[in-house]
Amino acid sequence: MMNKTDLKETRVFAEKAMKKFLIHDSAWFRIINFNLPAGVTFPVHSHELEGQLSIQVLEGEGFFLGKDNAEIPAAQGEILVCDIIEPHGVRATTDMRILVTIAPPI
Amino acid sequence: MMNKTDLKETRVFAEKAMKKFLIHDSAWFRIINFNLPAGVTFPVHSHELEGQLSIQVLEGEGFFLGKDNAEIPAAQGEILVCDIIEPHGVRATTDMRILVTIAPPI
Repeated sequence: MMNKTDLKETRVFAEKAMKKFLIHDSAWFRIINFNLPAGVTFPVHSHELEGQLSIQVLEGEGFFLGKDNAEIPAAQGEILVCDIIEPHGVRATTDMRILVTIAPPI
Repeated sequence: MMNKTDLKETRVFAEKAMKKFLIHDSAWFRIINFNLPAGVTFPVHSHELEGQLSIQVLEGEGFFLGKDNAEIPAAQGEILVCDIIEPHGVRATTDMRILVTIAPPI
């Protein structure tokens, strides 16, 4: 199988809420595009599971969020990797699109 | 651990050859940025391993390559997922940057 997705087609923003598009899901990894309007926060969370995830900023800017209220600047073209068990989140300063890859899927 | 990488810093092209930047490597996945100058081909290959990979076009355009000389148009913002065991490659029409995520790493 070769599955192609155009991320330009999931460039959809909801009003004042995060919008989620599942790009791929398998036993190996899950790929999700989240679109956050300016001002919206993807709350800090974590899961008691082994594995890692990447958060790539496709567009816009904001902050990667971590434990103890950590805020790491996040801009288009930046990618963050962390363990699934670590607290992580995102806050959008501008309209912001991120691509999250989780391995293994949770 | 939270590791941030700026993909703008790996926007380096070699002359007439593919350039490779390892973004992340762990037991869970490997993330690699390949930069292909116009006209360069990442030859079709495969590995006898279970798992999948994604190929995301960060910039430029060309073709995703598959078995039996398959050519699938590849443009900025598109992402292809395939099994590691399937023949896959990329041919750049313009200068082209791709981000490859392999789970598990090979």
